[in-house]
Amino acid sequence: MAKRKGKYTVVFDDPPGVRESAAVGSKKESEGPLAQAFDVINEDSYFGEKTWEKAESRMQETAINKALEKAQLSSADIDCIFAGDLLNQCVGSTYGIRALGMPFIGLFGACSTMAESLAVSSVFLEAGAVTRAVACTSSHFCSAERQFRLPLEYGGQRTPTAQWTATAAGAAVLEKGEVGPFVRAVTIGTIEDLGITDANNMGAAMAPAAAMTLKHFFEDTGTNPSNYDLIITGDLGKVGTDLLRELTLKDGYDLEHHHTDCGLMLYDLEKQDVHAGASGCGCSASVMCGHILPLIRRGTLNEILFVATGALMSPTVVQQGESIASIAHLVYLSSKKTGGRV
Amino acid sequence: MAKRKGKYTVVFDDPPGVRESAAVGSKKESEGPLAQAFDVINEDSYFGEKTWEKAESRMQETAINKALEKAQLSSADIDCIFAGDLLNQCVGSTYGIRALGMPFIGLFGACSTMAESLAVSSVFLEAGAVTRAVACTSSHFCSAERQFRLPLEYGGQRTPTAQWTATAAGAAVLEKGEVGPFVRAVTIGTIEDLGITDANNMGAAMAPAAAMTLKHFFEDTGTNPSNYDLIITGDLGKVGTDLLRELTLKDGYDLEHHHTDCGLMLYDLEKQDVHAGASGCGCSASVMCGHILPLIRRGTLNEILFVATGALMSPTVVQQGESIASIAHLVYLSSKKTGGRV
Repeated sequence: MAKRKGKYTVVFDDPPGVRESAAVGSKKESEGPLAQAFDVINEDSYFGEKTWEKAESRMQETAINKALEKAQLSSADIDCIFAGDLLNQCVGSTYGIRALGMPFIGLFGACSTMAESLAVSSVFLEAGAVTRAVACTSSHFCSAERQFRLPLEYGGQRTPTAQWTATAAGAAVLEKGEVGPFVRAVTIGTIEDLGITDANNMGAAMAPAAAMTLKHFFEDTGTNPSNYDLIITGDLGKVGTDLLRELTLKDGYDLEHHHTDCGLMLYDLEKQDVHAGASGCGCSASVMCGHILPLIRRGTLNEILFVATGALMSPTVVQQGESIASIAHLVYLSSKKTGGRV
Repeated sequence: MAKRKGKYTVVFDDPPGVRESAAVGSKKESEGPLAQAFDVINEDSYFGEKTWEKAESRMQETAINKALEKAQLSSADIDCIFAGDLLNQCVGSTYGIRALGMPFIGLFGACSTMAESLAVSSVFLEAGAVTRAVACTSSHFCSAERQFRLPLEYGGQRTPTAQWTATAAGAAVLEKGEVGPFVRAVTIGTIEDLGITDANNMGAAMAPAAAMTLKHFFEDTGTNPSNYDLIITGDLGKVGTDLLRELTLKDGYDLEHHHTDCGLMLYDLEKQDVHAGASGCGCSASVMCGHILPLIRRGTLNEILFVATGALMSPTVVQQGESIASIAHLVYLSSKKTGGRV
């Protein structure tokens, strides 16, 4: 059984473990500092398909199949897959998963989906509702740009606060057992909205959500940033990271020496001309599944807070004058099944 | 703890109960056979807002607040809300919930969302991850038409197989305890796709998903249609219902005397000119939350299978030639906490 700690946090008695994970990327991802973290790179951004939406589905399917292969499992071994993405009606996931025959829980958390899918699948495992699960998400620069901003053909100039949507996917296979990293606790996010209306400044819109979820977790557990090897948010980029550190400092938590952001890691911000950093569900998904989870498995990192952030707006409501509502879900990952911080 | 029964079904040891539920509708819903089932009717389809998307959010917020009021609870009593809808990026839910301050798990299941949200919240309750939850969804005729089909101003003619998207929302408050109806078991759906490409024939696209989930549940539990007072699908409408009965008969299950569909109940198909019936997340949500759950609470109905169906496509992928992938999630509801069929 899980138990609640404080008002917002769920702690697992028998923490589920991430048996394996995999990351898929494309050309730009292969030119960044985390190139080696990707299990599969396809320099063709169409991934052999005829449209970018189908490419994104193919990418998600590839990530799932790669994670299963690494775990020496087949899709029939999975009781349920938890996935979602940024595309309208989450078609990156639904059409990516269609051929696999797995029971499917569709999630919507925008760029927070990797944390949301890890959290929800962990609760299902803890409940005994499933014995083995996959958590998965993706994003694609081209499908996202044309859906959320402008047609690529328009060649619109990007603002300094803009982030670059990653063309990437990540998938993790979870089960109960002695193989970690272990999901020790989760804090489900609340919707925060400080009134940002600029769809080219997602980092600023999402930082308050990350700050609120971290505050909830630290209060609930009586811990603070120095208790963790790394607090990794995603995807705030440069603008959002500065704002997050300012906001958390006001709450009495100094992140400076314990924090990084997936949006600052995936690309070289200067050389790759990505302005404020990376974004998209696939950014934190690939950074976690390809880079951080293996580091925890090897014991290089031990106590990690993963706080994925998502902007919950649609172009339609922003055109109607709405501000950008955001959310952040937190997953506490540890190399150890017991002890630790909760 | 939950336990798995067969390959697809989850049975609850300490079944969560639906403490209260509420349904909200608009003018057309108030003229149908289930008019009395609605807690709130607002004949203004804008619900006092300036756009249909904002109207849908307002409707969802109204349903949640009404369910909380009937349960004599406030939003602070809720550990997590599980919600989603048909709009791009689920903005019906996210902007409807924004002001409530509840931790939020965003779901995407298209018109299957009411069953998905009941299923996922029940697993969270069973795990001990939450002690009280809300499950919620909505749809709006005007926001759905312009997003999925044509601008209303175009005045496009509707085909005989078309269904009418309900302008409605439903919300349920769940907790562990002695108050039912009780969620006794759930079967998470798999994605089915028999190649239908007509976005005006959703019933036919979704029927195979309902048939598959029912087959999984009956096989897993060793039960059959005659063990239940009512099997209620949603939202297949007339075309989909005929096809479902044909498909299940091939599997050896005769639904004829034990089955109805939410899409056949909400409107008078002849008098209200809705062609093949009702559809939309709000259809099965309002039929369940306003009509069926109260009937189970009063003991008029005792053993119910609720099988909500969703079409997972987006207009973009359909324009790219994709067929309509569908899913159906099943929730077994009973007036009794023990005994029964599992």
